[in-house]
Amino acid sequence: MSSDLELPPGVLQPRDAVLNMAPYSPPTGARADKLRLDFNENTVGVSPKVVEYLRQHLTEATLAMYPEYTDTKRDLGAFFGVDTDDFILTNGTDEAIQVLINTYIDDRADVLLLRPSYAMYRFYAELAGATIREVPYRPPKLSFPLEELLEAIKPSTRAVLIANPNNPTGTATSRAGIERILEKAVNAAVLIDEAYFEFCGVTALPLLQDYPNLFVSRTFSKAYGMAAMRFGCLFSQNGNVEFLSKAQSPYSVNSVAAMAARAAVRDKTYIEKYVTEVLAARELLYVGLETLGIPYYESKANFVLFQAGDRAIPIRDELRRRGVLVRDRSYEIPGCVRVTVGTREQIRRFLSELGEVWR
Amino acid sequence: MSSDLELPPGVLQPRDAVLNMAPYSPPTGARADKLRLDFNENTVGVSPKVVEYLRQHLTEATLAMYPEYTDTKRDLGAFFGVDTDDFILTNGTDEAIQVLINTYIDDRADVLLLRPSYAMYRFYAELAGATIREVPYRPPKLSFPLEELLEAIKPSTRAVLIANPNNPTGTATSRAGIERILEKAVNAAVLIDEAYFEFCGVTALPLLQDYPNLFVSRTFSKAYGMAAMRFGCLFSQNGNVEFLSKAQSPYSVNSVAAMAARAAVRDKTYIEKYVTEVLAARELLYVGLETLGIPYYESKANFVLFQAGDRAIPIRDELRRRGVLVRDRSYEIPGCVRVTVGTREQIRRFLSELGEVWR
Repeated sequence: MSSDLELPPGVLQPRDAVLNMAPYSPPTGARADKLRLDFNENTVGVSPKVVEYLRQHLTEATLAMYPEYTDTKRDLGAFFGVDTDDFILTNGTDEAIQVLINTYIDDRADVLLLRPSYAMYRFYAELAGATIREVPYRPPKLSFPLEELLEAIKPSTRAVLIANPNNPTGTATSRAGIERILEKAVNAAVLIDEAYFEFCGVTALPLLQDYPNLFVSRTFSKAYGMAAMRFGCLFSQNGNVEFLSKAQSPYSVNSVAAMAARAAVRDKTYIEKYVTEVLAARELLYVGLETLGIPYYESKANFVLFQAGDRAIPIRDELRRRGVLVRDRSYEIPGCVRVTVGTREQIRRFLSELGEVWR
Repeated sequence: MSSDLELPPGVLQPRDAVLNMAPYSPPTGARADKLRLDFNENTVGVSPKVVEYLRQHLTEATLAMYPEYTDTKRDLGAFFGVDTDDFILTNGTDEAIQVLINTYIDDRADVLLLRPSYAMYRFYAELAGATIREVPYRPPKLSFPLEELLEAIKPSTRAVLIANPNNPTGTATSRAGIERILEKAVNAAVLIDEAYFEFCGVTALPLLQDYPNLFVSRTFSKAYGMAAMRFGCLFSQNGNVEFLSKAQSPYSVNSVAAMAARAAVRDKTYIEKYVTEVLAARELLYVGLETLGIPYYESKANFVLFQAGDRAIPIRDELRRRGVLVRDRSYEIPGCVRVTVGTREQIRRFLSELGEVWR
């Protein structure tokens, strides 16, 4: 099991779990001046009311104080329609995943994932030393493999981590599908990661009081345009939340994010308008891809996977040279490139560049 | 081992490690309008230049983008005089501790702590399922128990976590003492948490290239007045940093903190002036406590422990009623109350209130 031989002399021996992990280095850097269709962010930015609120409230004194979450929890609880005892604030969804894993997953515990999906489920499960099993999304449409997943759930399964809609496939399952998973996986923490909820509308939140094994996460990094600040919520029944809180650092969420979230949920119109724009742009994107004869997967989120065959990486690189950033996903789904859906204007620019590159 | 019986029905069974952890709930809330001498923050606030910089750079677009750390790492590396491969940025010191534990501490691994010390060492070690041993600070002066610690280090020891200066004792060890620990604990990650470095001046950073088992953490939550934003650094040799990076979430540090840190290290004068003021105020505090006949422990940091006998909690409560916040530490050191050292003016107010309460 131990892998001492691989270590250069003088390096302290890490855990085997860490030694065996693949490094995760997302391609960032020099993105500011480009059309950023690579990280599923809000492509027009956070609400101006959030910026205004922050400019008013960031003072020498407030920035020097350890975070207090009482006001934010009250406002967010009211916004989501849940009791303040039924969720924790998290440093992005990543911390939600980490806290959930730390609370329930011991070394060698059985963890069920889907493939391909958001990389951080596997990351934290590996870090915890879990035994990971993966159920593939179903070809040809990369649809949610409900029956296969149900079959894979064992009494010993301790966690099932699902993004709904899923990244990078864009596909989703229904609330009824989620209920069947919750009914089968009775000994598991079932996470429904709703990072892209605003573009899809399906949520498991109303099931919270019916299933003590249900955990729902939301993020403010996507539709809300707060990726820089790192803010999310993890919901469950209060009996579980008590344990999640015990496994969480008391100050992991910064005050700026906590303040921004309060202002963000007050400006509902901004999000509604942005989501409407994205949904219109997604239709425009479909039409444009069809015109170019490029196959794609229908998506419930603010991104679309398209088929570039053996040209996935050259096309990504050529688009980057033209100032348009997209993500290669061909290592997960052969030939696939993922493009974030922004505004119609941004999608028109993307299609025009892609058209020139594609010929 | 399992503790199912304690769980109410319908609550999902957490890991035993979590079940057995004591909850850590720091007393926050309603602090804004009080004299805050309870969290060792910068009591006058962050540098105005940091606030100005943030107000300029917080825009709709920057807040919507996932963090990029290149510029911050370059500036911080230059500031600390280390290569950018020799440290990671962390979401406060808490994440530094967590990443270190996640990288090196398996279930039941031997972890050595001092007692009393910063609560998060024990928190993350327990969460990892470590076997924790504690060496007590040495009475009567609560001095650093170097010989006892050296004796406790075993070949199987995987981590030694030390705050230098220590919280809440305020006592410290020398660089020579640290070297003796590093020479003995060859199989352990030795963390020197220098959260209060600026008030003390002793640092293990220059030893970094000599000891592959050395890890040094710094925070911007104390002298730098950035507690709200959560920002720290964890230093080690680049061979180790590679593994620390593998065990860290790629976006745990928010962009606002990363921006603020750049502005903070540029304003050296601000920190120097604040530290000078605190050191003068600490002398004033000593004199004031002596005048009142209250025993105290000499400190190398921006806080002082004093002996209130069986009145620790009533005195904290009465000070709170008068708008002055201090921390009770009598559960760790019988009779002790901890007071943060702010400016001389703030300490005069504290002493005046304490004088009335003490009679």
